[in-house]
Amino acid sequence: MIITNQIITDFLQTRQATDEICAPLIMEDYVVQPDVNVSPPKWHIGHTTWFFEAFILLPHKANYTEYNPDFTYIFNSYYETFGKRVSRADRGNLTRPSVEDVYRYRDHVTNQMTDLLEENQSEELMKLVETGIHHEKQHQELLLTDIKFILGSNPLLPSYSATFEEHRLEKQKNKWIKIPEGVYEIGHIGRDFCYDNELGKHKVFLHPYKISNKLVTNGEYLQFMQDGGYKNFKYWHAEAWDWINQNKILAPLYWHLVDGIWQQYTLKGLKEIDLETPLTHISYFEAYAYAQWKELRLPTEFEWEVAQEYFDWGRRWEWTESAYLPYPGFAKEEGALGEYNGKFMVNQKVLRGGSVATAKNHTRYTYRNFFHPHLRWQFTGIRLAK
Amino acid sequence: MIITNQIITDFLQTRQATDEICAPLIMEDYVVQPDVNVSPPKWHIGHTTWFFEAFILLPHKANYTEYNPDFTYIFNSYYETFGKRVSRADRGNLTRPSVEDVYRYRDHVTNQMTDLLEENQSEELMKLVETGIHHEKQHQELLLTDIKFILGSNPLLPSYSATFEEHRLEKQKNKWIKIPEGVYEIGHIGRDFCYDNELGKHKVFLHPYKISNKLVTNGEYLQFMQDGGYKNFKYWHAEAWDWINQNKILAPLYWHLVDGIWQQYTLKGLKEIDLETPLTHISYFEAYAYAQWKELRLPTEFEWEVAQEYFDWGRRWEWTESAYLPYPGFAKEEGALGEYNGKFMVNQKVLRGGSVATAKNHTRYTYRNFFHPHLRWQFTGIRLAK
Amino acid sequence: MIITNQIITDFLQTRQATDEICAPLIMEDYVVQPDVNVSPPKWHIGHTTWFFEAFILLPHKANYTEYNPDFTYIFNSYYETFGKRVSRADRGNLTRPSVEDVYRYRDHVTNQMTDLLEENQSEELMKLVETGIHHEKQHQELLLTDIKFILGSNPLLPSYSATFEEHRLEKQKNKWIKIPEGVYEIGHIGRDFCYDNELGKHKVFLHPYKISNKLVTNGEYLQFMQDGGYKNFKYWHAEAWDWINQNKILAPLYWHLVDGIWQQYTLKGLKEIDLETPLTHISYFEAYAYAQWKELRLPTEFEWEVAQEYFDWGRRWEWTESAYLPYPGFAKEEGALGEYNGKFMVNQKVLRGGSVATAKNHTRYTYRNFFHPHLRWQFTGIRLAK
Amino acid sequence: MIITNQIITDFLQTRQATDEICAPLIMEDYVVQPDVNVSPPKWHIGHTTWFFEAFILLPHKANYTEYNPDFTYIFNSYYETFGKRVSRADRGNLTRPSVEDVYRYRDHVTNQMTDLLEENQSEELMKLVETGIHHEKQHQELLLTDIKFILGSNPLLPSYSATFEEHRLEKQKNKWIKIPEGVYEIGHIGRDFCYDNELGKHKVFLHPYKISNKLVTNGEYLQFMQDGGYKNFKYWHAEAWDWINQNKILAPLYWHLVDGIWQQYTLKGLKEIDLETPLTHISYFEAYAYAQWKELRLPTEFEWEVAQEYFDWGRRWEWTESAYLPYPGFAKEEGALGEYNGKFMVNQKVLRGGSVATAKNHTRYTYRNFFHPHLRWQFTGIRLAK
Repeated sequence: MIITNQIITDFLQTRQATDEICAPLIMEDYVVQPDVNVSPPKWHIGHTTWFFEAFILLPHKANYTEYNPDFTYIFNSYYETFGKRVSRADRGNLTRPSVEDVYRYRDHVTNQMTDLLEENQSEELMKLVETGIHHEKQHQELLLTDIKFILGSNPLLPSYSATFEEHRLEKQKNKWIKIPEGVYEIGHIGRDFCYDNELGKHKVFLHPYKISNKLVTNGEYLQFMQDGGYKNFKYWHAEAWDWINQNKILAPLYWHLVDGIWQQYTLKGLKEIDLETPLTHISYFEAYAYAQWKELRLPTEFEWEVAQEYFDWGRRWEWTESAYLPYPGFAKEEGALGEYNGKFMVNQKVLRGGSVATAKNHTRYTYRNFFHPHLRWQFTGIRLAK
Repeated sequence: MIITNQIITDFLQTRQATDEICAPLIMEDYVVQPDVNVSPPKWHIGHTTWFFEAFILLPHKANYTEYNPDFTYIFNSYYETFGKRVSRADRGNLTRPSVEDVYRYRDHVTNQMTDLLEENQSEELMKLVETGIHHEKQHQELLLTDIKFILGSNPLLPSYSATFEEHRLEKQKNKWIKIPEGVYEIGHIGRDFCYDNELGKHKVFLHPYKISNKLVTNGEYLQFMQDGGYKNFKYWHAEAWDWINQNKILAPLYWHLVDGIWQQYTLKGLKEIDLETPLTHISYFEAYAYAQWKELRLPTEFEWEVAQEYFDWGRRWEWTESAYLPYPGFAKEEGALGEYNGKFMVNQKVLRGGSVATAKNHTRYTYRNFFHPHLRWQFTGIRLAK
Repeated sequence: MIITNQIITDFLQTRQATDEICAPLIMEDYVVQPDVNVSPPKWHIGHTTWFFEAFILLPHKANYTEYNPDFTYIFNSYYETFGKRVSRADRGNLTRPSVEDVYRYRDHVTNQMTDLLEENQSEELMKLVETGIHHEKQHQELLLTDIKFILGSNPLLPSYSATFEEHRLEKQKNKWIKIPEGVYEIGHIGRDFCYDNELGKHKVFLHPYKISNKLVTNGEYLQFMQDGGYKNFKYWHAEAWDWINQNKILAPLYWHLVDGIWQQYTLKGLKEIDLETPLTHISYFEAYAYAQWKELRLPTEFEWEVAQEYFDWGRRWEWTESAYLPYPGFAKEEGALGEYNGKFMVNQKVLRGGSVATAKNHTRYTYRNFFHPHLRWQFTGIRLAK
Repeated sequence: MIITNQIITDFLQTRQATDEICAPLIMEDYVVQPDVNVSPPKWHIGHTTWFFEAFILLPHKANYTEYNPDFTYIFNSYYETFGKRVSRADRGNLTRPSVEDVYRYRDHVTNQMTDLLEENQSEELMKLVETGIHHEKQHQELLLTDIKFILGSNPLLPSYSATFEEHRLEKQKNKWIKIPEGVYEIGHIGRDFCYDNELGKHKVFLHPYKISNKLVTNGEYLQFMQDGGYKNFKYWHAEAWDWINQNKILAPLYWHLVDGIWQQYTLKGLKEIDLETPLTHISYFEAYAYAQWKELRLPTEFEWEVAQEYFDWGRRWEWTESAYLPYPGFAKEEGALGEYNGKFMVNQKVLRGGSVATAKNHTRYTYRNFFHPHLRWQFTGIRLAK
């Protein structure tokens, strides 16, 4: 019985946390999509709901009938298993269903899920519900970073919340953590939830290395900029050099040069750059170029995982040098959930850690986040190694 | 004094008519832009307001201060005179200012304009106000057709209004109106309002021609489709042939083949094609191809203007064979209003008439509407000549 | 018998003139396509040959068998009637058939044509041969301007010929030719060759106008440039403004600013701009902007045709304000030749006159050349009207 | 003195081998560029020559003067160090310098190099010459595969050579080679030439695995095709699925379905698929999808390197699952040569082995070739692991 309450509580708290992220929004904020990588908040609300309906209620709840057959078309993200869907780039063109309609759908599914969980707590179901909860937590992060992008690309630069604190000073002194050569174990172990991409536990050989106990700060990155970092090809990958030139990239995302002073759009609005706080909103390309300029390098994801117990982490996703690839023995899950991770394992980079936007209890030291190397709208930072 | 009341009444009625068009919308409908040629309703509301502020209140009302300096950046359409502006393709990414804020701005400007009109009715001002009114009427048509596009490209195909009647049967029998050869006068004359592109009155020589008293119907166009009209290159311009093949165009805009039956999205929702009512939502390319198939042709804008007194018109914009070019003696207006028409006089086709979406008293027989030859989201139709 | 010799002579001289244009080329020059509007010389050689084979030899010469069935695929330009063909943009990827092979094909067809013409001079055939000859003359102009583009976009800027004189001073004094109001006849009359787009003879009403007896010179255009003509939106069409900004257009095609001095690539190589000779290689967009800056305008094609007897012309194609549209009573030719003109009558501008690259006896005062408004690789110039 | 002769012999043999690859070409074949990844043969001839001039003759040969300053602009590939250059996509637009001119340049540099090598064999120079030789060998492979692409995308499908044998049957029986778990050494060791990306020798831990002793054959791949492999999303990465759908990929490159029979363009011309010979010209995306369908996987580059002594290799580049990343301790070379490898270490996949197009003595078991995952014009194949 304790377990019962726990899963229902987790489920309901997760659903509520999503609603809280949206609380400061006005109706109009829910609808738009200023970049193809950003989804409208309304879509996140609907998609996380559809996920529970499609993966749990329809196959597992007796007599449950689909709330609205059109919603699979509208709220499916990328599951080919479920057939055709609104193309990703068209998510921002959907004014209907209305925000109100989507919340009504959301409430319906929340209630039906609660009913189901009160009558059935089979192991198979628990596993699915846990996945649904983690799926929604993952979307909470995207929801917040997408909201930041929506507001941050508006010429009025409106604030999201007067109290949301993105930055935290890392007060410790710079130090190089030394890790000796050896064979180390990598990957998730135990019965707690994890994604298929963290399995299975396996060994890697690491040569001796050093890793910084601190993230790179705004002030340090500004030196790179002032030293002409964005103008000197030798720090950049060939693809990165094309990317900064074609897109006229001159600074991290959300940085604005106002009357000669660098300012930064945050969820609290525009404010002057704080030189001491960790840098954020840079691409892998920029992280790599910065490391080249420092004559250092980024850690691999394995180096990060082995050393992570010796430094604080979790306020910035940290770009690693590792490409996002399957671990030895990787096996996709069966069915539609098999589309969750494996099919993205090409042309992406692994990020480790977590961020101020990451849901509570969502990340862990084996968690493998991944993005294309040019993307910047997540809270991304740099930790150096050598 | 009578004049005073008249202009104020016209102004207020025009403002109100815009509001009425938006009455059936939900908040979300105001924000999106599913095609670069479509603007969000919120933008139209703001832009028609900004036009009065920028062209009338700021230069002519003593002590008037700009409502919000950001709004020129956001609500300027294409006037280079007023400097930088949100790029057209980004209009659908603006969640702020909110719809409520924009209506507040709108009310403010409406009130200020009324104040101004109660104290100053100089000829110069009257001319500007008249332009502002006609500008807003022009946007009323775009507003309605943009709303149709927003709802009509939504997979749910929601209706806009249960009562809005797009179609009207033309009951008269087919007849060819004969116009004899001669020199005819073309263009606007008199003191009523017109745009600069309708001036000045001038002469053209027309060879004898015949023009249909009726528009082409859905049923007639369906015959063209069923005869393989979209598959036979010989009816099409080379650019049109590329266009239909690249965009997989197989039918007019808003036509859906549902279980083998052609249906049409209208402002009332989806309904079966009525074979007897005039065809609409076709490009110039399609109008031309249809005429080729019939071994007939489209009239020139001059032929249309000369013959128009012999047939009913005003429910469909009618594609003509004429390119949109300056009349002899065309002179752009001074200042920013000079950007209204002249700079679009290349690569566009003239349409004559008016449509169900055209504001009352807005069009006239000398009115020259113009669009690129591939566009279809206006209520466009075909009248044949030979 | 005299006629016989005449048509054979014309045919052979035309074929030879094409060969002479290619005489200065090296093998490599025959193959490339640096712009989608430019065709490789080898393709012109093959295409003008294929035209005689497809339109004349195959249907009219007894027992003639196709030289090589692949050549229809390779050398058809845009005739849908003949089925699939190498896409226009891929013409520059064809190394085979070799230049030598294509000349062998060319000789074969020339010989077969001569044989045919010695035995059959029916009226139907004569008309086709005349079309074929004019078709080849038209390609001679493209061949030369394409060669200029191929060499002129090479960083080495090689010269084509030490003697080819592109420029000729117009020594007459500036004068405005006055044409009175009236109904004028336009279009081709008589039994000489013309294209279907010049027919039929018809009347237009012209208001009184003046037209310059001289073309705009390099020096005059340089004043426009120095007055910031390319920086001021008010002279430009909206589409033109986008075009110059996206393509960073700052001067006519082939102009190079070398050490502060404007130089011009010509078929003789790079040389300093001569201020007194007529301007060339400008788009319609630039011609229009220049006229706006002068507070004058371009003539219509009808104004040009009526006034042409009062000025010299034929060394520069002259942009007119007229869109390329069918004349009243325009009828496409039957069969594949019907694709020659009609299908291009949208989004193009008429040019009148001729150029230094135009074949002898090819143009005439009713000739209607046409190009998209942004194209510049032909020898195009400006004559003003008011 | 022996050393002297050896390096000069190596140098001259390498230069000659390049010439031999070009022997079957006609002049026209040297010039075109049908895909942005393909370079014209003339460019390879010039670029490999320029490499010796820029990296060796100019800095090391007393009184050597640049042959032609324009050639650095024309023949530099991607070395930002040497400044601006013809954009990659424009290489196929250069008709001048002529093929003859480029060979004259080539002979000049060959002679100057021989002179230099007869007088100076310092260690620094020897290292550079060795790099230049290997650079040219690398281009020999590209030259041949680019020629294949140029001829193979020509609708005439001309053969390159009647004797060049691309395919060789692997006669051994299928067998799984078992490799036990352990820490293995990876990377180049010794004094022989290698690229910076193969250094330094380091250790990796490998879990036990099996690797096939044979490459996948045409017949095996045909089964994947016939089983609907290209139609089933579940075998493909998300990016791959978009790629095959956008580009309508249905078979390996150079496969043509002629009258229901699969044929394959080879350097000998078109011939029927041989089911028993190894598959080639597939992308990483297709290699991965095939492995998924077989419920197996591709080896990592480390697994390949450790197992390579147990199977034959060198006739097909073999896609590995490994992303192209720096080895631990990777250090770019100083100066322009530092641009050789490091700047490409993102978004590419490692291939191991060699191919029928690889120059003699050019590859070795530590050699790391790399391409983007969608590219197919190299001789690429599949070896499976589990």
